[in-house]
Order: sequence, then structure tokens, then C-alpha cells
Amino acid sequence: MRYELYYWPGIPGRGEFVRLALEEAGVDYVDVAHHSGHGMGMPALMAMLENADLACPPFAPPFLKAGEQVIGQTANILLFLGLRHGLAPQEEAARLWVHQLQLTIADLVAEVHDSHHPIAAGLYYDEQKAEALRRATDFTGMRLPRFLGYFEAVLERNPHGDSWLAGDALTYADLSMFQVMAGLRYAFPRTMKRLEPDYPRLAALHDRVAARTRVKAYLASERRQPFNNEGIFRHYKELDAG
Amino acid sequence: MRYELYYWPGIPGRGEFVRLALEEAGVDYVDVAHHSGHGMGMPALMAMLENADLACPPFAPPFLKAGEQVIGQTANILLFLGLRHGLAPQEEAARLWVHQLQLTIADLVAEVHDSHHPIAAGLYYDEQKAEALRRATDFTGMRLPRFLGYFEAVLERNPHGDSWLAGDALTYADLSMFQVMAGLRYAFPRTMKRLEPDYPRLAALHDRVAARTRVKAYLASERRQPFNNEGIFRHYKELDAG
Repeated sequence: MRYELYYWPGIPGRGEFVRLALEEAGVDYVDVAHHSGHGMGMPALMAMLENADLACPPFAPPFLKAGEQVIGQTANILLFLGLRHGLAPQEEAARLWVHQLQLTIADLVAEVHDSHHPIAAGLYYDEQKAEALRRATDFTGMRLPRFLGYFEAVLERNPHGDSWLAGDALTYADLSMFQVMAGLRYAFPRTMKRLEPDYPRLAALHDRVAARTRVKAYLASERRQPFNNEGIFRHYKELDAG
Repeated sequence: MRYELYYWPGIPGRGEFVRLALEEAGVDYVDVAHHSGHGMGMPALMAMLENADLACPPFAPPFLKAGEQVIGQTANILLFLGLRHGLAPQEEAARLWVHQLQLTIADLVAEVHDSHHPIAAGLYYDEQKAEALRRATDFTGMRLPRFLGYFEAVLERNPHGDSWLAGDALTYADLSMFQVMAGLRYAFPRTMKRLEPDYPRLAALHDRVAARTRVKAYLASERRQPFNNEGIFRHYKELDAG
């Protein structure tokens, strides 16, 4: 069975957390809206979103089609893939811990998004720039250090060592943390230059994930989309006071 | 074993989604910070948050202590409780669907919070009132109808009938949806008066949950905390244009 990933084309966005899991797992998938042609592209994505026959409709992309099953919500997709493809522990308490980390990463990602869109996702950045300046100041000054300090402590306290966030092997939460670190460096280079020395384990985790055979091949491929100012991690110099 | 729920005292907040599940399940639990005395209250909550020996620390309340296991993130706690206490289906695809609904409810709850705190959770409402006016206009005009329309469609499309969000029995997602409807009516009475006629199934779901024997007893008890303007669902007349 070939998985079908549905996500907005042109940005890594939340779809990237799913792509990284699919790539590391080495499974067969198609990134539907990223391609054109019959049954592909935006028309295929919109057809799924507007399909009134779907008993379990997703609220928004990303969603994953696995045979007849359609699974929405990034962290939920990873919960599904993690168990099936060795990207999460089998034991229940450990599996919940990895999921808890993923949900906290999701909270951080939502705050990154709102740092440039604090008023409305439906308005342009320029229409909420004044508010974004205020929110980004709070984000880079207060919230981001709190999140990074938390994840650094999680690595430090891991009884199995500080190679991975949970247990003694890579999980989908590590893949997502890699993406978050890469995104933060793109969006807030000055801020991250200031903060990163305090979080050496997170920087090492980023490099450890990037060096995985399959991740490395993926990052060098055309399937990997660069960060840009249409996505979640955006670089606006004025929001990156440093 | 008695569960220990840890959440900020004085507000229903995100803790309420867990309380409703514990109450409907009829299990033994203590709402630690809601009580005073030895080992209780804010000191007990802060001691857990600051416990550097915790290998799996929560980022923020609510979290649940189940024996030696500490579980954080509201939706993750419900995932744990749902399976253990008959508040979610056993079958994997159905269980993921309920969790997906819960994560979408969590997204809505975060947007409710940000409607009065669009700039920083660490600032007072009055310090971000101008921005809140803009965000709440978008929330009540665009986002809220989209969320409510989604959940109404989920009820309508449920192959087992429109009594519950998923399948043919109550799940923790129904309990949470009840709380969201109650909270929205408290926070945005004029807006909800305008919107509710379009979502009759959601209104009926609210009443169906409220009539459950254990939920009814809970709502009438002192354990149930009223909504207030310190929580997530706050009533500011100026944010409720209707």
C-alpha cells in the first residue's frame, strides 16, 4: 500500500513533520498536492477537503490516506505512523511520553505561526505587522527560551542518555524537533545565535537527525522543500530582534 | 489507585476536559491544587512542575499522576483515560478518529484563548485589548463558524447517527465538546445566539452530555467550577459583537 500525503503545495509547513517520518521509515508514499497531473495537485487536495461523503473528514491539511483510512492532525498521523513503522516505542507509557512531546512541539509550532500572524491567518502579514512586532518580542524573549529550555531538560534527564528525546532510539518526536530547530534558525537567525549556546543538546540532536542515512538523502533530494515566507517558519528581519 | 489531577486552581481551564472524563468514568481522583492542606494546593502543583528528578516532565498543567506515571498534554491524558475507562473505542482506526477530533477541539480552545490574549499570555487583557478586538472579530466572524460547521458535519455524517461525534457511544470528545459549547455560550452569548440555530446537532449534544447521570451529578457539585474571567472562556462584552 502506498500512503497518500495531502498538504498545501509550496511550503514545508506542518506537512514536513509527516514527510520526515515517512522518509525515515523508508515507506512508499506520494505527496499528492506537490505533484501535478491526473489525480494530483491542488484539485486532488481540494476534492478531499470538499468530499461530503467522507465520514471522518479532516478539519485541515495535513492528512494521510492509508488505504480507506483518512487520518488528520499532524500529531495523530505521527501516532499512527510511529507505531506501525518503528518510530515510537511499543510500550504504552513510553508511547504516550513520545506523543506528549509531539503535542508540546505542536504548541511551539502554533506559537511560531502566530508570531507573524497574531490577528488572523486570513490576513496578510503586512495587515498585522504592528501586532506581530509585539507578539514576536514576547515570543523570542519569553516563550521560545521556555520551550527550548524544556526540551533541553528532557534530553538531559533522559535516563538512556541525551542522544534522543525519549528512550534509547530515534522517535518521530526527534524528527520533528530537528525540523523545529532548522525552522527557528531560518526564521530567527539573530535570536537563535543568542539562544543556542544554552541548548547544546538540542543543537546536537538536530545534527544527529540530519546525519541519518535516509534523512540525509531526503534533505538532498527535490522532495525536500526549502523554508520560505509563505510557511510557518518565516524570516522577517524586524521580528528577529536577536 | 487514586488518580491525581494537577491544574491551576480557580479556573475550569484545560483541566476541565480531564475532570469531565474522570467524572463520567466514575473513577477515584483528587484535584490536587483545588484543595488545601498537606500535600495539596498550589505548593503541591509547583513542587511537581519544579521537580528536576522527573524524567518525563510536563511542560504545563494539566497533568495526571497515575501511580508513578506522570502524563501531560490534555489530549494525551484523554487518550490514556479513554482506553482504560471505556471513553474511547478499542479498535485502532476508531480510536485515532476520536483523538483527531480531540486535537481539533484543542485547536479551537487555543483560538478561544488567543481571542482575548493575542499578544502574550503573560500580559493582562487590558494591555492587549486593542489587538484582542481585532482578533475576536476574526474569531467570531470567520474561525468559530468554521469550527462549529465542521463539528456539526461530523455529527451529521456519523454512520451510527448524530447522537455522538464518533461511533454509537459517548467518548471523551463528546465530553469536551459539551464543555466547549458551554464555554462559548458563557464567553460569546450574543455571537452564539446568532450562530447556534445553524448547529442544532451540537446544541443537542451539549444537552445529551449534560443529562448523563454522572455528569449531571458533577455539574451540581462543588467540584464543578464556574467559568470566570481568569480562564480560557472569558466574557468581555466588547469582544462579543454578536
